Amino acid sequence: MNSFHKELWFKIPSRMEFINITDDVQEVLHESEIQQGLCLVNAMHITASVFINDDESGLHRDYKKWLEELAPHEPLSRYDHNLTGEDNGDAHHKRQIMGREVVIAITKGELHFGPWEQIFYGEFDGGRRKRILVKIIGE
Amino acid sequence: MNSFHKELWFKIPSRMEFINITDDVQEVLHESEIQQGLCLVNAMHITASVFINDDESGLHRDYKKWLEELAPHEPLSRYDHNLTGEDNGDAHHKRQIMGREVVIAITKGELHFGPWEQIFYGEFDGGRRKRILVKIIGE
Amino acid sequence: MNSFHKELWFKIPSRMEFINITDDVQEVLHESEIQQGLCLVNAMHITASVFINDDESGLHRDYKKWLEELAPHEPLSRYDHNLTGEDNGDAHHKRQIMGREVVIAITKGELHFGPWEQIFYGEFDGGRRKRILVKIIGE
Repeated sequence: MNSFHKELWFKIPSRMEFINITDDVQEVLHESEIQQGLCLVNAMHITASVFINDDESGLHRDYKKWLEELAPHEPLSRYDHNLTGEDNGDAHHKRQIMGREVVIAITKGELHFGPWEQIFYGEFDGGRRKRILVKIIGE
Repeated sequence: MNSFHKELWFKIPSRMEFINITDDVQEVLHESEIQQGLCLVNAMHITASVFINDDESGLHRDYKKWLEELAPHEPLSRYDHNLTGEDNGDAHHKRQIMGREVVIAITKGELHFGPWEQIFYGEFDGGRRKRILVKIIGE
Repeated sequence: MNSFHKELWFKIPSRMEFINITDDVQEVLHESEIQQGLCLVNAMHITASVFINDDESGLHRDYKKWLEELAPHEPLSRYDHNLTGEDNGDAHHKRQIMGREVVIAITKGELHFGPWEQIFYGEFDGGRRKRILVKIIGE
């Protein structure tokens, strides 16, 4: 069994944004030279997500509106978490809806995907450098 | 390390439905002859889910009602995604609540499950053929 | 490839609670002696979650309030599932929001975590003994 990993850094200027990282993950996979296995991609921060869905700007606007309805940023007093001096209580909730991680099958050295699957980094508390982890095991 | 995979196709006539696929996944596992490892089961479409919960018809009715409250199908104009000509904006949201994938431990050649765990394919935009992927790695 | 697993039991007296299990998982990892691989941690019950987020009591109060808004315990008649004689319809919904499992990269014999990642067992139908599974594969 072989294993390979890489941390990738992002700095998203806005509070909430979705960034297509499919090419970044594919590059790490090709570098690993692993042909058969599993690839874990996870946010290393607890106010961010990694998820798989469609690369369509209308859908991304819909997600932002919906997540803001489910877990509004304001009023900040809505969240006891913000009593710590943070203002990101909402971000910890949005991340639970969208998920921390995805696990992707590797077949013949490629991400084994359906026709529309794309990997996104979901930022819910932007404005600073944050990381994801790509870990691949297999042969 | 060994690996094995199979794609399984479904065509669900209704828009939203949950199908118990535990036996299908077990069959793929037995075919793989892998005794110790991990089994990934994921939807290959972005308007469908794979999740683990109870095989109880009342609960499934509850889930449908709840998901329809959280992300209603209508009015179609609710979703910018539907401006592309699609009518499945809601399905992309429901799938995020229920999840894309599950990862299951394999121990002694079986799915290592608690007493009530069953695997479901969750369809949120039915009426056409769609796939899931079962990928198993181990020994 | 090596594999290792352990089931860990909990009995949470209250209906809903979050328990930090990071040390428990680390102990299983060290016992496994696996240096590079993947670690699956999942609830073996369908009214409980395993998730990764912050160990901050205010946030945990926020989660409880939010989950109770999204899927209230009462009235029991809200859920067809409760017609079976159960009173835990809500718990099956809360578990879908918070997730069944996490998959964690193992690097140099440690959980490969960002600065604030902590693993929690999320109980939504407490008062009885329930299990989680830790399964590790790697080398």
